[in-house]
Amino acid sequence: FTDSTNMRLRLPLLCIILEVILIILFGALVEYNDDTHAKMWNANKSHSATRDDYENEFYYRYPSFQDVHVMIFVGFGFLMTFLQRYGFSSVGFNFLIAAFSLQWATLMQGFVHGMHHGKIHVGVTSMINADFCTGSVLISFGAVLGKTSPVQLLVMAIFEVTLFAVNEFILLSMLGANDAGGSMTIHTFGAYFGLMVTRVLYRPNLDKSKHRNSSVYHSDLFAMIGTIYLWMFWPSFNSAITNYGDPQHRTALNTYYSLAACTLATFAFSALVNPEGKLDMVHIQNAALAGGVAVGTAGEMMLTPFGSMIVGFLAGTISVLGYKYLTPVLESKLKIQDTCGIHNLHGMPGVLGAVVGAVTSALASPGVYGHGLQRVFADAETGKWNPQSRGGFQAISLAVTLGMALFGGLVTGFILKLPIYGAPPDTHCFEDGLYWEVPGEEEGHELNEVATPNEMEKLNS
Amino acid sequence: FTDSTNMRLRLPLLCIILEVILIILFGALVEYNDDTHAKMWNANKSHSATRDDYENEFYYRYPSFQDVHVMIFVGFGFLMTFLQRYGFSSVGFNFLIAAFSLQWATLMQGFVHGMHHGKIHVGVTSMINADFCTGSVLISFGAVLGKTSPVQLLVMAIFEVTLFAVNEFILLSMLGANDAGGSMTIHTFGAYFGLMVTRVLYRPNLDKSKHRNSSVYHSDLFAMIGTIYLWMFWPSFNSAITNYGDPQHRTALNTYYSLAACTLATFAFSALVNPEGKLDMVHIQNAALAGGVAVGTAGEMMLTPFGSMIVGFLAGTISVLGYKYLTPVLESKLKIQDTCGIHNLHGMPGVLGAVVGAVTSALASPGVYGHGLQRVFADAETGKWNPQSRGGFQAISLAVTLGMALFGGLVTGFILKLPIYGAPPDTHCFEDGLYWEVPGEEEGHELNEVATPNEMEKLNS
Amino acid sequence: FTDSTNMRLRLPLLCIILEVILIILFGALVEYNDDTHAKMWNANKSHSATRDDYENEFYYRYPSFQDVHVMIFVGFGFLMTFLQRYGFSSVGFNFLIAAFSLQWATLMQGFVHGMHHGKIHVGVTSMINADFCTGSVLISFGAVLGKTSPVQLLVMAIFEVTLFAVNEFILLSMLGANDAGGSMTIHTFGAYFGLMVTRVLYRPNLDKSKHRNSSVYHSDLFAMIGTIYLWMFWPSFNSAITNYGDPQHRTALNTYYSLAACTLATFAFSALVNPEGKLDMVHIQNAALAGGVAVGTAGEMMLTPFGSMIVGFLAGTISVLGYKYLTPVLESKLKIQDTCGIHNLHGMPGVLGAVVGAVTSALASPGVYGHGLQRVFADAETGKWNPQSRGGFQAISLAVTLGMALFGGLVTGFILKLPIYGAPPDTHCFEDGLYWEVPGEEEGHELNEVATPNEMEKLNS
Repeated sequence: FTDSTNMRLRLPLLCIILEVILIILFGALVEYNDDTHAKMWNANKSHSATRDDYENEFYYRYPSFQDVHVMIFVGFGFLMTFLQRYGFSSVGFNFLIAAFSLQWATLMQGFVHGMHHGKIHVGVTSMINADFCTGSVLISFGAVLGKTSPVQLLVMAIFEVTLFAVNEFILLSMLGANDAGGSMTIHTFGAYFGLMVTRVLYRPNLDKSKHRNSSVYHSDLFAMIGTIYLWMFWPSFNSAITNYGDPQHRTALNTYYSLAACTLATFAFSALVNPEGKLDMVHIQNAALAGGVAVGTAGEMMLTPFGSMIVGFLAGTISVLGYKYLTPVLESKLKIQDTCGIHNLHGMPGVLGAVVGAVTSALASPGVYGHGLQRVFADAETGKWNPQSRGGFQAISLAVTLGMALFGGLVTGFILKLPIYGAPPDTHCFEDGLYWEVPGEEEGHELNEVATPNEMEKLNS
Repeated sequence: FTDSTNMRLRLPLLCIILEVILIILFGALVEYNDDTHAKMWNANKSHSATRDDYENEFYYRYPSFQDVHVMIFVGFGFLMTFLQRYGFSSVGFNFLIAAFSLQWATLMQGFVHGMHHGKIHVGVTSMINADFCTGSVLISFGAVLGKTSPVQLLVMAIFEVTLFAVNEFILLSMLGANDAGGSMTIHTFGAYFGLMVTRVLYRPNLDKSKHRNSSVYHSDLFAMIGTIYLWMFWPSFNSAITNYGDPQHRTALNTYYSLAACTLATFAFSALVNPEGKLDMVHIQNAALAGGVAVGTAGEMMLTPFGSMIVGFLAGTISVLGYKYLTPVLESKLKIQDTCGIHNLHGMPGVLGAVVGAVTSALASPGVYGHGLQRVFADAETGKWNPQSRGGFQAISLAVTLGMALFGGLVTGFILKLPIYGAPPDTHCFEDGLYWEVPGEEEGHELNEVATPNEMEKLNS
Repeated sequence: FTDSTNMRLRLPLLCIILEVILIILFGALVEYNDDTHAKMWNANKSHSATRDDYENEFYYRYPSFQDVHVMIFVGFGFLMTFLQRYGFSSVGFNFLIAAFSLQWATLMQGFVHGMHHGKIHVGVTSMINADFCTGSVLISFGAVLGKTSPVQLLVMAIFEVTLFAVNEFILLSMLGANDAGGSMTIHTFGAYFGLMVTRVLYRPNLDKSKHRNSSVYHSDLFAMIGTIYLWMFWPSFNSAITNYGDPQHRTALNTYYSLAACTLATFAFSALVNPEGKLDMVHIQNAALAGGVAVGTAGEMMLTPFGSMIVGFLAGTISVLGYKYLTPVLESKLKIQDTCGIHNLHGMPGVLGAVVGAVTSALASPGVYGHGLQRVFADAETGKWNPQSRGGFQAISLAVTLGMALFGGLVTGFILKLPIYGAPPDTHCFEDGLYWEVPGEEEGHELNEVATPNEMEKLNS
């Protein structure tokens, strides 16, 4: 690393150029959809105006959108503040790349599968989808946390969002896959993309910064803000874009039970793998969320609370064991330095979720779903539907996702390796001071001075 | 305390056994209700499919559920982080026992008052009710905070949830009581149950840990996160399971005004009882919430904003005075060591709420409620309804709740006293280090090193 | 400052007197509106009861209300915790004056433009409006943060809320202005009111407290909680009281894009204006929000995502430049000590928003809006509507707001200058210890003691 980490020109130029391109493309291509357009909303309606307004999709999607939005900005942002001196970057870069990615995702997802007469139509559903795509980028961010400059992160987002949209198109439109909560499209994709990037960016001398690659007491509490918000709102995440009615309701319910069971498994195995039986904040902060990841595909299906809890329990278990036993091996043997352990939170549970989704699809039947079958499996409408074949396509979707993620991460990793982005040197990873004005320590005994009886007496006289 | 506090086997075994039992019982007994079941949702409808989906209870309950969910996991969890070295346990054990309790509550509430042809039906309303029951356990947790192991807390939750469901059944189904926001079922029950448990677990030598039984500057700020979230979402809590329409709307409105008035009373009396007129964070964090507790029963009635503000003002006042004058007496005279002062936040305001509910019920009349009377007082449908009798049953409900809570807390306390749960010794209460891997302090002048001009120059060269 | 800062009598007396007055006025004047009243809700309906309940405005406004509520109490409260030793006051006084202001605003807004047969009708819309008015007071609080006692803040709120209601009446009812998100009524008004107050309260010797007028590491992270919540929920803020249907949906969408573009501008210019290219937390915490302010008027119009992003980008840019270059000049030349830089976050972006609103109004046409025109511009119903004239009235509304704010702030400032409110001395500004019981520092190596192998062995034996 011989280049400077000074961001004075690189970061502003990149941000301004990207935003100008975004604005031009939005001006040329993006339009309000029928539910947000003053003219179209009224034009297409036959009922009375009052009734119509209540039917706007806003009222059925927007609360879910806001929950997802909180997960993206507070959940992911604060989850990564566990590092002792990387809180500004965790929340701040999360904020930056999410704000960029949601705009870029609106365009990419629109290009690939949302064009209407040459225009991209936007509304609350596109907002949710853009936030979903952003989530994938933030998962990858977790793998390279502390070892990348904001310029690198923006460049990574450009490529990852694009490939996400392509993969999503292949899965949802070409393979007809179900993946409402994104076990495959979001979690598996984001995780293996990020793991490949961090593999390519391997730093043999990262131990020079290892004293900073850990938490302090209050940074762990900040991280718990992220954990708890992700945990609470995951039912909204998985259900945000399912069909209205029973599928949305059922998805939220399944996710709720999966997470509850996952939490008990997490506490159990965290204590079990520790010689003194002590709980590890890393496990609680992360593994307790694996239950949400693992029902991201099957959550909208008739998985039942029983099935959801089994899946959640398994997800928590493999996640804790992954943190304990697999992460060190990945680093020492495969040279994958995974700062947040995304392989344990998003990678393995994402694959588990894909498998559970394939199996649950293969077991679907009109006897269980009744007329609701077509509302979960869109191609069941044709009458020629075959659940085993559906399960097979779900499995193919997982394979495609893994391939796209690993290939995309490989290419992107090599692009990010160019010595032009101001990446931190090995000695100064996990350090806010490189990219932020960091305040000094608080004045020593300021408060005690105020509290001395003499001084207070003077103030009160 | 001669036994070890090592949790390596006890906590994992208990968590795994409990979760396996839960999964088996869910498999045997729990079914989707009509609004979450793919087959049943469609089977029972006569209108067009599109219209039906909008009528799913999900859209009218789920936003309230999420607000309640935030109160349970962020509100209660962070409220208890005020202790200087018990933040991991406050948020973490809150997380664990809440995740367990909501599953167990689904079963217990289902057994006692929700069976349909031998099956427990679940959906968003059961999720809210399970969270409510969980809230009661977390209130009791506040009394024993810092003095109990996670194993003890789980055992307490097993008994408390069970008894909660029985008490709730007696009140709502047998006595026909109104208690939508749970002044009685949640707050009074949880408070007196917890106070009795902590009485039985009295530690004469707790002062050996008193240097840790206090806050530091940033721990008080973390606690304010909990306070503010509880305060903001309390209108959703009280209104979450009322009837649709005006009752839900009115409950939220009444709670909003009660809390606002309560906050002014809290600041007033906090300054008044301090010799130097200084505000006390303990009061602000807790007493400002008493207004929500105190309209938990009457909130859905025609209490009026005027009435709500009077109740809120009284609740804030008695809560601050309780913290200042009653809590020390409870400890010294009655040997009740109430870490969070739940008697002041949930106990007395809960009783006040029950009394206000009884009086407001007794004053209800068709002249005030019109056709809405039956929507608040279900038994007014019979035509033989007598408001005074209704008020009487409300008062009886309070007495039953107090009896159940005190008796249940007594029994549970003795069970928790068995020396097998790894409770902390008197010298190590309020200490995360017993049950958690706690990170060391941050490296001293790391940042300053980075900031030295010489080093920066090298980096930038 | 020769008077005492002791709040023992002043704060309690003021709080109790104000709350008693509020309760009396509420008792005399406030009634449930038709959607919250048990009798009226049913009385006016002709359809079946079940259908009606779903139409209650509660279901279409309450989720937005809760988002706004979070912005007021968590957003504003935590945004101001950036100061190293003023976190208790930031969150606590924010809590106090907001709880007072929302009650007082209900009355003032009701008096001025919400009377029905001599009564003020309340429901979820009045709750949102009261929270909006409260937001204005909290903006002004940002200018005087650290330099005022809670008694001064309450007195300021009394006057500001009153004048807010008058200004709002002039704009919305007399001038027929559009300002759903309050670029003028909330942000411009609150900012220039607060700037004038702080001008009058100018402290030439404030540098005696300058060592406390800065952040520490964790206080900046607490502030980011406020920032992120404001950022996420701003789409709900701007859309909370628009007409149902497409206007509400469109407003949320426009705000979302404006904020995303603003965030990229903020990061770009924050790095650009720093000699070492380092990002400044002050900019990220504040300027990234300017995009929400700047579409507060035009957000409900057909601004398009393209237009919203341009506005957001401009807002972020002028806000960062304001923090860097204008704030120091305001202080040195105009003697305006603006603690939080509200001129940069609310003042200039508010004026920008008003101008954008005027221009967008002037460009409105039936060709673009179709039948939706009247749903955005209420007076377009008359058929005699002239967009240029509408744009003109919007511009006049800005001028009126500036005049009202500056005049009101001047008068209020002189009232607050009376030496009877216990304002802090110049040497003790930005200091919680004056008004709060502040805990001591944490015990040094408590944790390490616990962790020593010997001690753990004893515990475990």
